[in-house]
Amino acid sequence: MKSMTLKTGLLLSTVTTALALSFGAAQAQDRNITMAVSIPAATHGWTGGVVYHAEQAEKEIEAAFPNIDVVLSTASSATAQVSSLEDLSSTRKLDALVILPFTSEELTGPVAQVKEKGTFIAVVDRGLADPSIQDLYVAGDNIAVGANTATWLSDKLGGEGEIVVLRGIPTVIDDERIKGFSDVIGKTKIKILDIQYANWNQDEAFKLMQDYLAKYPKIDAVWANDDDMLLGVIEAVDQAGRKDIKYALGGNGMKQVIEMVKEGDERTPVSTPYPPSMIKSAMYMTAAQFAGQAPMRGSFLLGAPLITPENADQFYFPESPF
Amino acid sequence: MKSMTLKTGLLLSTVTTALALSFGAAQAQDRNITMAVSIPAATHGWTGGVVYHAEQAEKEIEAAFPNIDVVLSTASSATAQVSSLEDLSSTRKLDALVILPFTSEELTGPVAQVKEKGTFIAVVDRGLADPSIQDLYVAGDNIAVGANTATWLSDKLGGEGEIVVLRGIPTVIDDERIKGFSDVIGKTKIKILDIQYANWNQDEAFKLMQDYLAKYPKIDAVWANDDDMLLGVIEAVDQAGRKDIKYALGGNGMKQVIEMVKEGDERTPVSTPYPPSMIKSAMYMTAAQFAGQAPMRGSFLLGAPLITPENADQFYFPESPF
Repeated sequence: MKSMTLKTGLLLSTVTTALALSFGAAQAQDRNITMAVSIPAATHGWTGGVVYHAEQAEKEIEAAFPNIDVVLSTASSATAQVSSLEDLSSTRKLDALVILPFTSEELTGPVAQVKEKGTFIAVVDRGLADPSIQDLYVAGDNIAVGANTATWLSDKLGGEGEIVVLRGIPTVIDDERIKGFSDVIGKTKIKILDIQYANWNQDEAFKLMQDYLAKYPKIDAVWANDDDMLLGVIEAVDQAGRKDIKYALGGNGMKQVIEMVKEGDERTPVSTPYPPSMIKSAMYMTAAQFAGQAPMRGSFLLGAPLITPENADQFYFPESPF
Repeated sequence: MKSMTLKTGLLLSTVTTALALSFGAAQAQDRNITMAVSIPAATHGWTGGVVYHAEQAEKEIEAAFPNIDVVLSTASSATAQVSSLEDLSSTRKLDALVILPFTSEELTGPVAQVKEKGTFIAVVDRGLADPSIQDLYVAGDNIAVGANTATWLSDKLGGEGEIVVLRGIPTVIDDERIKGFSDVIGKTKIKILDIQYANWNQDEAFKLMQDYLAKYPKIDAVWANDDDMLLGVIEAVDQAGRKDIKYALGGNGMKQVIEMVKEGDERTPVSTPYPPSMIKSAMYMTAAQFAGQAPMRGSFLLGAPLITPENADQFYFPESPF
């Protein structure tokens, strides 16, 4: 409410300013805006978080910007998402579409068709096969998830020790996380004893960690690459009663793991975010494009700052399923 | 207001959803948030636009999010901006600082001091010397400004012809624009007859274009690299009565040039945005971080889509000075 100007500053005259008040945004604010949001259904933890945060953002954005109507649609398969796009765009004029595509291949054509009608397209997480379709792209930084975890771990281990790593599903996302982690570890004396796939699955991670524990009598730390897998890893370690493992780390910022961080857990004192709430980022940015003509065409790469006991509250959503 | 679910979708139960309503954001929304905004004063066209859009965003954000107080400060020099930061942060707890630094070198230390108090730091346009200080970075894409203009021009000229180019002030920004442009032109048969500096100054551009006109009897197109310089170029061309110049293009999305685009000017039918309204993008994104805990740490690179008669309204602020 207060506006400060240094004496040395040249502010536009108050008269000009008053005349100009919110005139520029008036064009957008005078008419009703429909923002469709198309996301996968809550078929597993992370997408459950996406649904939760999209619903929250719908309420918050409609309260903040009364002329914006958010229409949220979930789908449990790529085919269902294609149908839902047809339903959404056949019955009304969409000013904007925020979409987290089930798959790149199947959704690219249908999203291009929506775009052709003049709809602003915001794509989240998984890109389309043709990036020229999107006006805005919001994605997490998987390289940073791996690199920031590795940097922290290397500091804590004094740059040496023996660790094991779990991989997810063979995808670009997994490749990037592993590359970010391995590049940092490669510059230290830390040895990766073993690295195998457990498909981002808690049960498979439990079994793989049991194998690692049987095979290696001394392990300084384990990086599970993902918080879902981390829960399986921790269960295996606890069942085996192994006390040699100083650190067990994941990544993603899952609620249960952030609670461990908040509580100062010694074995899992940090996580890194790859937050399902990134759907909110895209929805708020799209709202700003229409509510204030704020330029929102471009590419937003989320950072992956370490989640620590000091900042964990900022990443914690007590009511979210993830 | 409406929420659609495909029959195939698995939506969280309505009861859970209702219980969870905006709980996650409640922490942030319950308390008052102070967002300081520190920008250069309106010393020339582009910064005049920055001041205008920051003032607009202040009104809009305070109306949309009643618990957010925006405190706007302008400064006409790097030294004044350092003092203003001290004033802003000594008298109150800043939750967030959105800053367009006058210079990288002089502002890096003072912004780092604000950061140490736990303030969320959003940096716009000119980076700090230490990027680790910023939580959010918002910048335009100067490579794309040059490349998109060159691609359009090459199409229109059929990939051949003779052109002249004006450079700005020797800076990274100018280097990037020229590189984006030259890389595309280098793949065509278009010849750049001449390329010299005119320091993003309208008068200097006028004089340089007069030189070009005297030197080259036939010029197919001129790229002024910037809309301020473009106005000088056009004046020189019109005074000389030269009809050979098919296209005179700039870049930045200045109001007068967007008006030419809207009116279907044959010589200047397009521009590319490097919009002073990017301050709004940063302010809205910071607001979303606090209003909705939407993750906004990261790097947002604005695209530079061609501004054409069809979409010019989206880039047009009739009351803005720029």
